[in-house]
Amino acid sequence: MSTAWTARYALRTKGITSSQIRELLKLTQKPGMISFAGGLPAPDVFPVQRFAEACHKVLTENAALALQYGETEGYQPLRDLIAHNMARYGIKAKVENVLITSGSQQALDLLGKLFINRGDRILVEAPTYLGALQAFNVYGAEYESVPIDEDGLRTDLMEEPLRSGPKFMYVLPNFQNPAGTTLSEVRRHELVLLADRFGIPIVEDDPYGQLRYEGEHLPPLLVLDRENLRRDQGYSIGNVIYLSTFSKTLAPGLRLGWIVAPPEIIGKLTQLKQGADLHTSTFTQFVAYEVARDGFLDKHVKLIRQIYRERRDVMLQALKDFFPPSVTWTHPQGGLFLWVTLPTGFDMQTLFKSALEQNVAFVPGDSFYANDGREGCRHMRLNFSNAAPEQIREGIRRLAAAVKSHLTGTTYRLKLPLGV
Amino acid sequence: MSTAWTARYALRTKGITSSQIRELLKLTQKPGMISFAGGLPAPDVFPVQRFAEACHKVLTENAALALQYGETEGYQPLRDLIAHNMARYGIKAKVENVLITSGSQQALDLLGKLFINRGDRILVEAPTYLGALQAFNVYGAEYESVPIDEDGLRTDLMEEPLRSGPKFMYVLPNFQNPAGTTLSEVRRHELVLLADRFGIPIVEDDPYGQLRYEGEHLPPLLVLDRENLRRDQGYSIGNVIYLSTFSKTLAPGLRLGWIVAPPEIIGKLTQLKQGADLHTSTFTQFVAYEVARDGFLDKHVKLIRQIYRERRDVMLQALKDFFPPSVTWTHPQGGLFLWVTLPTGFDMQTLFKSALEQNVAFVPGDSFYANDGREGCRHMRLNFSNAAPEQIREGIRRLAAAVKSHLTGTTYRLKLPLGV
Repeated sequence: MSTAWTARYALRTKGITSSQIRELLKLTQKPGMISFAGGLPAPDVFPVQRFAEACHKVLTENAALALQYGETEGYQPLRDLIAHNMARYGIKAKVENVLITSGSQQALDLLGKLFINRGDRILVEAPTYLGALQAFNVYGAEYESVPIDEDGLRTDLMEEPLRSGPKFMYVLPNFQNPAGTTLSEVRRHELVLLADRFGIPIVEDDPYGQLRYEGEHLPPLLVLDRENLRRDQGYSIGNVIYLSTFSKTLAPGLRLGWIVAPPEIIGKLTQLKQGADLHTSTFTQFVAYEVARDGFLDKHVKLIRQIYRERRDVMLQALKDFFPPSVTWTHPQGGLFLWVTLPTGFDMQTLFKSALEQNVAFVPGDSFYANDGREGCRHMRLNFSNAAPEQIREGIRRLAAAVKSHLTGTTYRLKLPLGV
Repeated sequence: MSTAWTARYALRTKGITSSQIRELLKLTQKPGMISFAGGLPAPDVFPVQRFAEACHKVLTENAALALQYGETEGYQPLRDLIAHNMARYGIKAKVENVLITSGSQQALDLLGKLFINRGDRILVEAPTYLGALQAFNVYGAEYESVPIDEDGLRTDLMEEPLRSGPKFMYVLPNFQNPAGTTLSEVRRHELVLLADRFGIPIVEDDPYGQLRYEGEHLPPLLVLDRENLRRDQGYSIGNVIYLSTFSKTLAPGLRLGWIVAPPEIIGKLTQLKQGADLHTSTFTQFVAYEVARDGFLDKHVKLIRQIYRERRDVMLQALKDFFPPSVTWTHPQGGLFLWVTLPTGFDMQTLFKSALEQNVAFVPGDSFYANDGREGCRHMRLNFSNAAPEQIREGIRRLAAAVKSHLTGTTYRLKLPLGV
């Protein structure tokens, strides 16, 4: 039905892309489905009792403030707690460096709003987080894609893309979504130096940083950027804006994320946030603060690590046990995802449908490429945080059966929308 | 301190305006201040016990869903409840017509994103809601301002502005913010016919509609627009997008609003919302549903009406008792605000400072004009919902003293930034 409104869409709507993942989430809720599709935390790890105590405390002691309008920057004790918690990762943020956002997704939207003019190029990883593309697309972003390997972004391939003058780089250094890869320490140093040399700043998106299951924590780009200053006063500072979230450590249903940036940038983002939603829910901020405080968050993150490490290991073992040798996958040191690579010439859409028929879901890789999804047609993103271990093993068994039947029976059909 | 980021702001930042009101909210939190400045509900009306029960129920029975990611469109039982509740006002919405937003402010932002290209003209009331201007400004909106009187928007002055081809009209028919005026029934019919005749659709913003303290409820523009269809099949339908919120009936700290629109528009807005914040907090949606359900919201709104009616009456009486005869004000039939008009040539900034010194705050009227704040320099917006009755009387007494001293001692100074 057309209305007086429908002829009036802005240019911006050309940038609207429906998230295949979010549409998939609907499909995968049918009973019996084992879903590796979403990026959902395990509901078993939600600290429900602690939430109940926190709600009780907030409503008993602080209801008049917790239910009222609040400051756009966020609830100050929560901003303090975030700044304090980040210090252990070497991030020296003060409260004025921290803006609370309605999930990390809003951080991406506000950054797009503040920095992107139609036609601006953004340097992204290939593959990269789909939600960032969605956020940036509406502001008319175009992309320079740089491939990744097991050590993350290929810093050796960046000079040419950086010379083309992108507005900023968007990078997920830890346990990247979708590939599960981690940017090596050497490349982190290289990346920060490249940013400085070309004058191209970095958005560092770190939703999973605390969920490391093996190996040593690596310094955030934000920290390396500041260390540059100490080594050589000639270096500029403030090249890195850092994003994180409570979605993977407390609960995504809160919609609480944050931005770390120089105060001047925080000021601008705060003004944009006023216009976007006035402020993030005071109630969820008060509750999150009561849940996280007094060291609870740290203890809880340890529990999550333990549970997700087991699930990752179950998935890795099942892949080894059930998948044919022509298929490979990443070995994530943390996070929620791994990335499976199939032989070239695979008909991913057909595989995806077969898998759904056998009640197992994943996200086809082509969604995660800014410029050319064809490379993604060989890939599947698998989430290992949401399903229970026995389901993971069963799901991978089903998926392997679907893959094998396509490799043997109907191999190399070329029906993909973009070709292969 | 300048960083690699600061030279990179988008054109969009030219549209950033810091909200004077939100900055004021900070000032007015000092002890002893009687504030008529914000648009804050009375904390005494928050149904705290019901919230506590709702949190308990949600976390006992539904934690795995309430703390998890949810659908962008919103929590279906809450959307159903909203659709059902609106039916009593004649609004026949189905669940697919309702999108939950992170407060009404996000609805304005999403509408700006969907419809406004740089340079598009939006027809607004003069004065109008500042937050709408903030939301639309970042998308490069320009404005056609049409004056209001005690019966709301002057529909007799609209032909020329409509002929200039605005993208849409933005109207607050009930107990308008800031002026407290209500669009008369006759003018509602006229406005809907004008929209149809000129093909210019309407955004109807109705945050206060349920808070009517006297007189009969008037039909929303959305309802009149649909009735047009029944009278004459030749009329187009779907000219009106309707916005409302739980901020004034439950609690603003939830950040829960909604949009009513044709499904096609809801689809587009949902895609934009995915990119903006994925979805509104599932937890606050589940809690709001448990609070509002089983008729509680209706009973609660009756209580709010009673409390705010008293406060309005106390403020009207105090204005009558303390203010000089050269000052006039509106008589709001509902809502949270009234609008005071001072004699011409008043130095509002000086009055504002004097008032703050005497621990009473308001918002100077110039903030509420899209094009030319000079008209606003004669006006003050006063909120009557937040302060207790005895404070209201005392605050108006102090404000009257400040006004009188300026009228007698230092009248007609012309130091306003824009002249008078």
